[in-house]
Amino acid sequence: MKRSRRMAVAVGTALVPLTLAGAALADDAELRALAKENFEIIPMQAPQLGDANVMSRERVELGKMLFFDPRMSRSGLFSCQSCHNVGIGGVDGLETSIGHGWQKGPRNAPTMLNAVYNIAQFWDGRAPDLAAQAKGPVQAGVEMNNTPENVVATLSSMPGYVDAFAAAFPGVNDPISFDNFALAVEAFEATLVTPNSKFDQFLLGNDGAMSDQEKAGLKLFVETGCAACHNGINFGGNGYYPFGVVETPGAEILPEGDTGRFKVTETAGEEYVFRAAPLRNIALTAPYFHSGKVWDLREAVAVMANSQLGAALEPGQIDDIVAFLGTLTGEQPEVVHPILPVRGADTPKPEPM
Amino acid sequence: MKRSRRMAVAVGTALVPLTLAGAALADDAELRALAKENFEIIPMQAPQLGDANVMSRERVELGKMLFFDPRMSRSGLFSCQSCHNVGIGGVDGLETSIGHGWQKGPRNAPTMLNAVYNIAQFWDGRAPDLAAQAKGPVQAGVEMNNTPENVVATLSSMPGYVDAFAAAFPGVNDPISFDNFALAVEAFEATLVTPNSKFDQFLLGNDGAMSDQEKAGLKLFVETGCAACHNGINFGGNGYYPFGVVETPGAEILPEGDTGRFKVTETAGEEYVFRAAPLRNIALTAPYFHSGKVWDLREAVAVMANSQLGAALEPGQIDDIVAFLGTLTGEQPEVVHPILPVRGADTPKPEPM
Repeated sequence: MKRSRRMAVAVGTALVPLTLAGAALADDAELRALAKENFEIIPMQAPQLGDANVMSRERVELGKMLFFDPRMSRSGLFSCQSCHNVGIGGVDGLETSIGHGWQKGPRNAPTMLNAVYNIAQFWDGRAPDLAAQAKGPVQAGVEMNNTPENVVATLSSMPGYVDAFAAAFPGVNDPISFDNFALAVEAFEATLVTPNSKFDQFLLGNDGAMSDQEKAGLKLFVETGCAACHNGINFGGNGYYPFGVVETPGAEILPEGDTGRFKVTETAGEEYVFRAAPLRNIALTAPYFHSGKVWDLREAVAVMANSQLGAALEPGQIDDIVAFLGTLTGEQPEVVHPILPVRGADTPKPEPM
Repeated sequence: MKRSRRMAVAVGTALVPLTLAGAALADDAELRALAKENFEIIPMQAPQLGDANVMSRERVELGKMLFFDPRMSRSGLFSCQSCHNVGIGGVDGLETSIGHGWQKGPRNAPTMLNAVYNIAQFWDGRAPDLAAQAKGPVQAGVEMNNTPENVVATLSSMPGYVDAFAAAFPGVNDPISFDNFALAVEAFEATLVTPNSKFDQFLLGNDGAMSDQEKAGLKLFVETGCAACHNGINFGGNGYYPFGVVETPGAEILPEGDTGRFKVTETAGEEYVFRAAPLRNIALTAPYFHSGKVWDLREAVAVMANSQLGAALEPGQIDDIVAFLGTLTGEQPEVVHPILPVRGADTPKPEPM
């Protein structure tokens, strides 16, 4: 749009009426300013994790191996990738994940893409960072059903992992530990960011990166109040809110047994409180909500507007917001599948039961 | 070794005694000739599949998407990659695979690496090629438990697959079909070859590519008779033999209920007949045999020598053969994990039961 206007001025014609173009520019500038008050772009470079987890190529590569290795599970079937698929926006596309012995997990698997930018991990924020998060599913009986001891024994039994841990944690006496397993996974996951979405391009100054409908959706998203919870770099993932601020959704969507953050804090008033879902790549990660019960993004938007804001959106408004949410799909990470270390004579065998 | 000899001659000294070097050369040449009578190298370039499946970049890329897509299974959990992991030598490292509803498959998952060079697919050779093979696990109740109709409905519901099939099967009226699904998977799998192993380098003329022990193992492998069944480009995969030519192994290794090729041909004399296992990358693909009951390659070699050849190998001989088998590990394929198409409103939902 900017280019059109300049061209029109340059050739001294009115191919694009200057007033209209000027109005559009003012609108874009205003909209961008509004957006900048609420949101941030995802930087092109993956973030560093600080002193607690000094990233190196070796640590990231090790983390990738661990992330993709099904031998981290008791059965030998599940890896992190099973539920956080790099090819499906970082999720498994199931209502709740299938785990050890065909058990169903209690909540929908959240994406690990851009999760490094969340204030805390899991739907209830019970893990302060991705390293703490990585230790959860490995041990959960309904997920990978393993133990730290068995993970360490498995890793220690393979020369390929012995070398990789030594390279990833140089100068450390016993580099193979469950803590270092988690740090390596965190280092890899921190690289799984999706920059350069249409929204980010718009925020950076490219007026043409978003369509008129997408821009209308962005405006509506902010003005309806969605951005009160879904803001920041990840459009969520940075605060806790009750599911049902204004109106409690039905039990189909909000199962009574899962009281959310109350289970973590045991604080009155935190029943059915969850971390606001990050909305980056949301168009890729159906089904929605912690229950995974809603498959249609239009329905999810309608439910949220109703339950959180008491707003009954028109179908056209929902379309606009959904169109806008599609601009949050960024460049998906290009991941070369790792070649995993060969098992050794002492490698614990899988136990499928 | 060749280089050493030339240098010694060139400078007119006897740093490497000429007689010894000459003897080694003669031995290497003889061993290479013996090997060439029995085996072939894997070409650096993936093979073409002929008129029945004209390979193109688009078809291979589509096949890769299908290979990695868990939505090809009824539950949404399993993809081809689940049991044929590109990071683990093309297998899952389980005795028998875990499938739909946590059922256990009847036989150990064979590798798809270099499988394009097999005479037929599956342990009993019941599929003539990789396209026919690809249709099996998708439909098997104990594996992916899907139907051709549901696969086609799933693919047709996603614009990303509609476009990818049109590009992979240009000029075809209804490019999305279960047959074309299988052809695309076959095209991708045909690229999964592992050339440039130490053995291949030796066969091509590089004397130093194998150690003395590995060469001794190769010689022993041929002279003991292993190469009678394990020959050709894949060291197997090209003929059918009873498990227990000389002595029938115990039921722990050869379960009585699985009569192998007899189930396919119903021909007397074909009880417990299986396709000779291809031995390329065998060091990566424990556990062994169709039952998956043997985890140690040394034990597998001893069992084979005893049951198929009536030979009781010395421990040192087994070591040599195992060392040689390690030279069959080739360059593992570098596979960028595909970004999978986004589901549509009509995409069938996963049915985990």
